[in-house]
Amino acid sequence: MTSIRLSLDEVRDLATRCLAANGCDAANADAVADTVTRAEADGCHSHGLFRLPGYVASLRSGKVNGAAAPKIEAIAPAVLRVDGDGGYAPIAHLASRDAIVETARAQGMAAVALVNTHHFAALWAEVEPLAERGLLAFACTAYKPAMAPVGAKEPLFGTNPIVFGFPRGGGEPPMVFDQASAAMARGEVMIAARDGHELPPGVGLDADGQPTTDPNKVLEGVMLPFGGYKGSAIAMMVELLCAGLIGERFSFEAAEADNNDGGPPRGGEFMLAIDPDRFGDAGWRDHAEGFFARYLGLGGTRLPGARRHRNRAELAEAGIEVPQDLRDKIEDLCGGG
Amino acid sequence: MTSIRLSLDEVRDLATRCLAANGCDAANADAVADTVTRAEADGCHSHGLFRLPGYVASLRSGKVNGAAAPKIEAIAPAVLRVDGDGGYAPIAHLASRDAIVETARAQGMAAVALVNTHHFAALWAEVEPLAERGLLAFACTAYKPAMAPVGAKEPLFGTNPIVFGFPRGGGEPPMVFDQASAAMARGEVMIAARDGHELPPGVGLDADGQPTTDPNKVLEGVMLPFGGYKGSAIAMMVELLCAGLIGERFSFEAAEADNNDGGPPRGGEFMLAIDPDRFGDAGWRDHAEGFFARYLGLGGTRLPGARRHRNRAELAEAGIEVPQDLRDKIEDLCGGG
Repeated sequence: MTSIRLSLDEVRDLATRCLAANGCDAANADAVADTVTRAEADGCHSHGLFRLPGYVASLRSGKVNGAAAPKIEAIAPAVLRVDGDGGYAPIAHLASRDAIVETARAQGMAAVALVNTHHFAALWAEVEPLAERGLLAFACTAYKPAMAPVGAKEPLFGTNPIVFGFPRGGGEPPMVFDQASAAMARGEVMIAARDGHELPPGVGLDADGQPTTDPNKVLEGVMLPFGGYKGSAIAMMVELLCAGLIGERFSFEAAEADNNDGGPPRGGEFMLAIDPDRFGDAGWRDHAEGFFARYLGLGGTRLPGARRHRNRAELAEAGIEVPQDLRDKIEDLCGGG
Repeated sequence: MTSIRLSLDEVRDLATRCLAANGCDAANADAVADTVTRAEADGCHSHGLFRLPGYVASLRSGKVNGAAAPKIEAIAPAVLRVDGDGGYAPIAHLASRDAIVETARAQGMAAVALVNTHHFAALWAEVEPLAERGLLAFACTAYKPAMAPVGAKEPLFGTNPIVFGFPRGGGEPPMVFDQASAAMARGEVMIAARDGHELPPGVGLDADGQPTTDPNKVLEGVMLPFGGYKGSAIAMMVELLCAGLIGERFSFEAAEADNNDGGPPRGGEFMLAIDPDRFGDAGWRDHAEGFFARYLGLGGTRLPGARRHRNRAELAEAGIEVPQDLRDKIEDLCGGG
């Protein structure tokens, strides 16, 4: 596979042109291009340029509104409802971020119900900016069924990622973990199949609903949540927060309503932003740093997100490797639909 | 092992007498006895009468205040700080429950920072009453180090349970899951050792810090979080919420300060209570019931807590089996310290 090297400015430019050529206005194109660029900058290629064909497909099909103007409303003192106007999630986050921070500072905490939006981006990129402004933040989102609950043989839960961010002291970037509720990413199962490796137990079921460690059989069957029934409960919690609580679609409803154009279904996202300065311990930052020091001092540990931060430092200068055919495909898409 | 049968009234009476004889005033004795009785009523014997010797040990040593008068303060519009006055957690929950519900209804959501308390009870018993009043609720607590973070060989995290509750319609009890962040309860590892069963991978390390599936070696070594690095991240989140955010002790700090009298160390608890009626979807309850119906309709699934509810229905009439020697020990403790 031939690859080419692009600077992050070139990544941003390519993404922006491609989105603008397919129905995004400037604000929407910039917001999505920013999330794509930040994913590439941190080495998360699966959420970078790789997603552009999917973004474009849903703009072309008319499923997603490329001129979305999100509306933000405080529907209770500590609750913000963000209506994404049928657009992609990044514009909704950009439009609501200041209100989220202000509400969290004023009330001590803000809950955010994001509805009428399409989520195709890395969740950490939505939580990290809040943590950089000194807030704890949590977010989760559902998608379309990809995992069977423990005990079942059919998919019901999306991969249902959860993200948590905690601000650091001493100029360190925030600690942010971002993890799907699936035992393994589908891409990793595909790599195991390609390389002829067996999977650990608990990753998935075959087409008959029987447990298997054969990656080919899991690809024909269904994935399972991480950690058995405990991960299954967390995946259920995500459904209940992102759909049950806020009045958006459960993963199974999102799939039923989706046009399967290759882009993300309409769905919801739930966020919390918490201001630690309103919780009664002015020394919280040093206190937490003592914990992080103890954690890292154990040896063998690393903080979630550390690899992203290392990539960020290296790739800012070096730029990124992009498969030639992906770049060519995106350039083609820049011709418009 | 000889056992005797006690009605739930007899359980409550035994627990109340035992606590009152060891330094609890009436309000504190009633609060702890209630949490003990509810655990037994749901078949959770590990959090029932079994814990009374530990409760008594910390009353006798003077570590825990049996006459605690918790103080509740709204330190931000959506944040309640509950100072447990050095007592056991149940009195702090009892004293703050109305304020939590009122704050959640008024603000849309309440965060609760419980500090200066000793937690030895089942977490679900603290979340279920909020869910019965129509709120979503989340809680977590740390303890003393019992698990190594992924990659490390020494314990740092407590077993760090998380609990989430969601109200049901149609007269059903709320869905409440309550799960430790450990791969397996220590008691289960002890049973595997007794029965000569191998453990699944990922449960623990031996005394040299090497992965093992031998339960005897895990008992000499250290436990691991459930689900590998994902469960490890959740255990870290619990530490950051219950100590870093609210200014209480991390598990490692709690252990350093504890007198090891057999009862629980001083620590913190973090709770969220969320009013779904303030999130913009009046039909949330029916919507969620559609999801639960779909989940249960898959076959092979059961809702978290279903076993507790079945036990509750059966044991209310039948009473519970208690080991004779445990009952005798508690009767001895009723003689006072």
